[in-house]
Amino acid sequence: MGKRIQLTQEKAVHRERLSGVFAPLTTPFDEQGNILLGKMASNIQKLNGSRLRGYLVLGTNGEFRSLSTSEQMEVLKAVVKTASPDKTIMAGTGAESTKVSIDLCHQAADIGAHYGSLITPFFFAKNMSDHALINHFVQVAEKSPIPVLLYNNPGVTGITISTTVVKEVSSHPKIVGMKDSSPGNLSAYILSANPGFCLLAGSANFFFTALLMGAVGGVLSLANAFPEPCCKLYEIGVGGKLEEGRELQFYLMKVNQLVSGKFGVAGVKAAMDFGGFYGGPTRAPLAPLTADEKKKLREELMAVGFLKG
Amino acid sequence: MGKRIQLTQEKAVHRERLSGVFAPLTTPFDEQGNILLGKMASNIQKLNGSRLRGYLVLGTNGEFRSLSTSEQMEVLKAVVKTASPDKTIMAGTGAESTKVSIDLCHQAADIGAHYGSLITPFFFAKNMSDHALINHFVQVAEKSPIPVLLYNNPGVTGITISTTVVKEVSSHPKIVGMKDSSPGNLSAYILSANPGFCLLAGSANFFFTALLMGAVGGVLSLANAFPEPCCKLYEIGVGGKLEEGRELQFYLMKVNQLVSGKFGVAGVKAAMDFGGFYGGPTRAPLAPLTADEKKKLREELMAVGFLKG
Amino acid sequence: MGKRIQLTQEKAVHRERLSGVFAPLTTPFDEQGNILLGKMASNIQKLNGSRLRGYLVLGTNGEFRSLSTSEQMEVLKAVVKTASPDKTIMAGTGAESTKVSIDLCHQAADIGAHYGSLITPFFFAKNMSDHALINHFVQVAEKSPIPVLLYNNPGVTGITISTTVVKEVSSHPKIVGMKDSSPGNLSAYILSANPGFCLLAGSANFFFTALLMGAVGGVLSLANAFPEPCCKLYEIGVGGKLEEGRELQFYLMKVNQLVSGKFGVAGVKAAMDFGGFYGGPTRAPLAPLTADEKKKLREELMAVGFLKG
Amino acid sequence: MGKRIQLTQEKAVHRERLSGVFAPLTTPFDEQGNILLGKMASNIQKLNGSRLRGYLVLGTNGEFRSLSTSEQMEVLKAVVKTASPDKTIMAGTGAESTKVSIDLCHQAADIGAHYGSLITPFFFAKNMSDHALINHFVQVAEKSPIPVLLYNNPGVTGITISTTVVKEVSSHPKIVGMKDSSPGNLSAYILSANPGFCLLAGSANFFFTALLMGAVGGVLSLANAFPEPCCKLYEIGVGGKLEEGRELQFYLMKVNQLVSGKFGVAGVKAAMDFGGFYGGPTRAPLAPLTADEKKKLREELMAVGFLKG
Repeated sequence: MGKRIQLTQEKAVHRERLSGVFAPLTTPFDEQGNILLGKMASNIQKLNGSRLRGYLVLGTNGEFRSLSTSEQMEVLKAVVKTASPDKTIMAGTGAESTKVSIDLCHQAADIGAHYGSLITPFFFAKNMSDHALINHFVQVAEKSPIPVLLYNNPGVTGITISTTVVKEVSSHPKIVGMKDSSPGNLSAYILSANPGFCLLAGSANFFFTALLMGAVGGVLSLANAFPEPCCKLYEIGVGGKLEEGRELQFYLMKVNQLVSGKFGVAGVKAAMDFGGFYGGPTRAPLAPLTADEKKKLREELMAVGFLKG
Repeated sequence: MGKRIQLTQEKAVHRERLSGVFAPLTTPFDEQGNILLGKMASNIQKLNGSRLRGYLVLGTNGEFRSLSTSEQMEVLKAVVKTASPDKTIMAGTGAESTKVSIDLCHQAADIGAHYGSLITPFFFAKNMSDHALINHFVQVAEKSPIPVLLYNNPGVTGITISTTVVKEVSSHPKIVGMKDSSPGNLSAYILSANPGFCLLAGSANFFFTALLMGAVGGVLSLANAFPEPCCKLYEIGVGGKLEEGRELQFYLMKVNQLVSGKFGVAGVKAAMDFGGFYGGPTRAPLAPLTADEKKKLREELMAVGFLKG
Repeated sequence: MGKRIQLTQEKAVHRERLSGVFAPLTTPFDEQGNILLGKMASNIQKLNGSRLRGYLVLGTNGEFRSLSTSEQMEVLKAVVKTASPDKTIMAGTGAESTKVSIDLCHQAADIGAHYGSLITPFFFAKNMSDHALINHFVQVAEKSPIPVLLYNNPGVTGITISTTVVKEVSSHPKIVGMKDSSPGNLSAYILSANPGFCLLAGSANFFFTALLMGAVGGVLSLANAFPEPCCKLYEIGVGGKLEEGRELQFYLMKVNQLVSGKFGVAGVKAAMDFGGFYGGPTRAPLAPLTADEKKKLREELMAVGFLKG
Repeated sequence: MGKRIQLTQEKAVHRERLSGVFAPLTTPFDEQGNILLGKMASNIQKLNGSRLRGYLVLGTNGEFRSLSTSEQMEVLKAVVKTASPDKTIMAGTGAESTKVSIDLCHQAADIGAHYGSLITPFFFAKNMSDHALINHFVQVAEKSPIPVLLYNNPGVTGITISTTVVKEVSSHPKIVGMKDSSPGNLSAYILSANPGFCLLAGSANFFFTALLMGAVGGVLSLANAFPEPCCKLYEIGVGGKLEEGRELQFYLMKVNQLVSGKFGVAGVKAAMDFGGFYGGPTRAPLAPLTADEKKKLREELMAVGFLKG
């Protein structure tokens, strides 16, 4: 689906590399909050065999802001080393200042990330005018060795990237797309953006309709634990099969509400434990599920047929 | 489209009466804020000839909270008197207390409204627990002579009706549906609701995808000024025509952003003036468009081909 | 305390009539939500004997938006009839439109209220610019038979009246003051306002410091149940006695947190029941305290020595 | 003023070291966003001669989240090296995770900071329950080599530290106080806290009343540019002089509104330029004042007599 347009060769390559389902990788910790790079590698080895298009490392589900910068880079190295060559790697390189974001893009590029993902700076949220954000995104893109995507997550940042910003920056040759986790704005971004700009749905809750309206893929937390049904929904959406798509969309939404909707990263990690991956605890002060919550979640996922006894 | 299910005869009748496009009628005022019932009647006479399924009177676009109760009832009388018999009439009967809401349902029923529309009470927003809202909706429904719909508008009320509330009340024989103006929740409501429950999209911005996911219609402010393209999109959506639908959806979204998105009720009224209806000023302290804003809006609507010179 | 300034005779009279503690009267209901005017009268008869400066009727604690307009006027009549002649009566006359607010001011004046209290219109909160609010307040004041006060309650309305608005309207001869329930803005309003403008603290939580900075009084929900300690704090504050005032302020804050802070109007009504008044239930969907909550509140108030066994 | 209580010797020492006015130091940048440590040193040398009690380095006004961790430590080193020995040094050591916060406390202690200031983690704001925050603060305090203060700034974090949290952690021997930038909660924190806990007002807007209610000092952005009037207000507040204090409070509030209220960090830096310090630009994407804004601000400060021609 999507708009049928003539793209430059470069934009066409980006579109190909960004089309499909991405898992926003979680960062495995032990009970003391130490990073377990071995578990990270074994998770990725399993995911390598799926139809996932790639990985987003150092995003919200990766608890990136809970890591030191050196820890972030260790995690990224482990991913680059383990990911199969066909997987696209996006790395969270958005910091609170333009300067530090540029520096992170350089570090991530050196390690081997393909794209940088730029969350909106939000510490000074009230001062993040369209003008300030446009300058930020353009300057980072200009100085970054790798192309970048915007990351719109008002639930965390309190900032909704405006259609004006998207319109303005989406023609930039090195700003190739946006991951949108806002509720209900994705169509408006597609409408505003330059045709070559790649929109990625940031939640399984609206993945199917996003594809129908022209999104090229999705970054779905559920794909950490259950990549296949996510890839299936992508396939159906791209094929424009309404009946099938609606059914699977509602089913995945139900699962997503139980896992990510109710519990966030901690729920995703619990679901990974159920799905044969290492989820493990979150890093404090973010709390993992209690034993009771985890037991109940397992039962609910079994009740909807998503887990087998 | 929509779920194929067996409905009781009663629910099937409601579904039929609620399927399609509704105009949320504006209330015409003169410059001093006096209601012009004659203008109201002439607007409706024009709309009677359209394919609109019906009218929502005394909603947000009707500036219902800016009217006294007696004015509200005068407006409703004018609508009931003028609407052609095939049009379904929903009236805003939601007040801040259960008792007053019930009283408004009685008054509206006596005048001839077919359905009451219940905005969530929100003066004491922090106290509106699921439990409180369920009690409110059920008690109003029980005592109302006419069936009711919920009205979810977090942008105004600060309250997002939870899927728990929808799940709980959607089986009630007299709570027949919900108008949803929230960004991005409509699919979740369809998933949670009893299959016979009728969801209506509260904005042209997501009307097409709402229909694809199972909404039965929409209450679209744009339909006050331009009913036909709205009805066309409904027809396309129900027919599941993806290419055509996407194109018209993006087009109407562009118009809707210029009109309702940017200016709210005041913009809708200006668009009505352009479209051959009486829009006129809003009631203070809500301000109408300035002459400059109105001129610019006309030019923008001409630029996108929505208005002819 | 307060600024020492030359006031016009008229302003001096208002200042005298607004200086002190006001009880924001609750509206008594039976279990079915019917108004009990007899209970209202007996509450007021008890309060008449206190040092309260007057009553605010039809405010937030009066659940005014949960009443029909005719009910509101019945309540006001009961207050006017029962209040002793030395008590100042402010009535909530702020509606969502300028026109209806003016009409309510006329009705309230006819019944005998001394001042109208104008909550900011907030249904169209996003459109309530400084300009719109200034126009609204000035137009209502111009056409109202009685002087008015602004009512700033962002916790309910989502709107914080700006210092620009206060600066602009505070010189108007018929806009005589403001009840401020915002957290922490009162000093800024005093700084911005015309010297004759009367600021009333909207909560016991900051009553003492408000008086030290120049507020003329307070509208304190606690005064419904326990008028004397509120009047005592006023006296101490006006006298500028720091040690005593700090101690009583902390004590009343502790009580206020248990009652109003935790439970809102429902808590105030429970405290009235404890204090020998008729509190009774709130009107649905606002829920009263459960029996357990009420028992625990009584114990907590006894533990801090506010209630005797 | 303040509560007269018996403190342990240790708590008495902390109280002495935290009583007075602190400047939340800004970080000087050149036009390219490079840190100018020499300018930092010359600013501090000037401030060393004032009556300021000490410095908060790496706070909101220091744009700490816009710096890399290694930059943060360079800045701290410069401050420790330059501050006169009588000044107390607090360093922002609060990160998004407990682990990284502990690490920053170690780094800051090694460099020579006296106290760590812990902003609430807020990336996962919705998950920051009282329980999570209590665990976080206590664990950091236990493992930090230096005592810590909480930093409550809901305008930035979206989180208001509850009185429950304050009550719980304020008895911990290594959690010695809190800087509170929330509007209107400071008295409630004093009421809830263990008597030895030191409250610092986070804004000049409520400094005087905070002192009257028992705060031991303030962290005032204005003190970067104009330390003396801030110290004067402290002296008056501690002395309980109402008339004088009210007058100076209103005057400083007027200045603070023009500078910090309207322009935030960028305004503070402009005021520093006027006051004989190096303010300079903010780091992108945070924007400095335009030439016009700066000119107008200078005129306004001259108009209120705060700057001389």
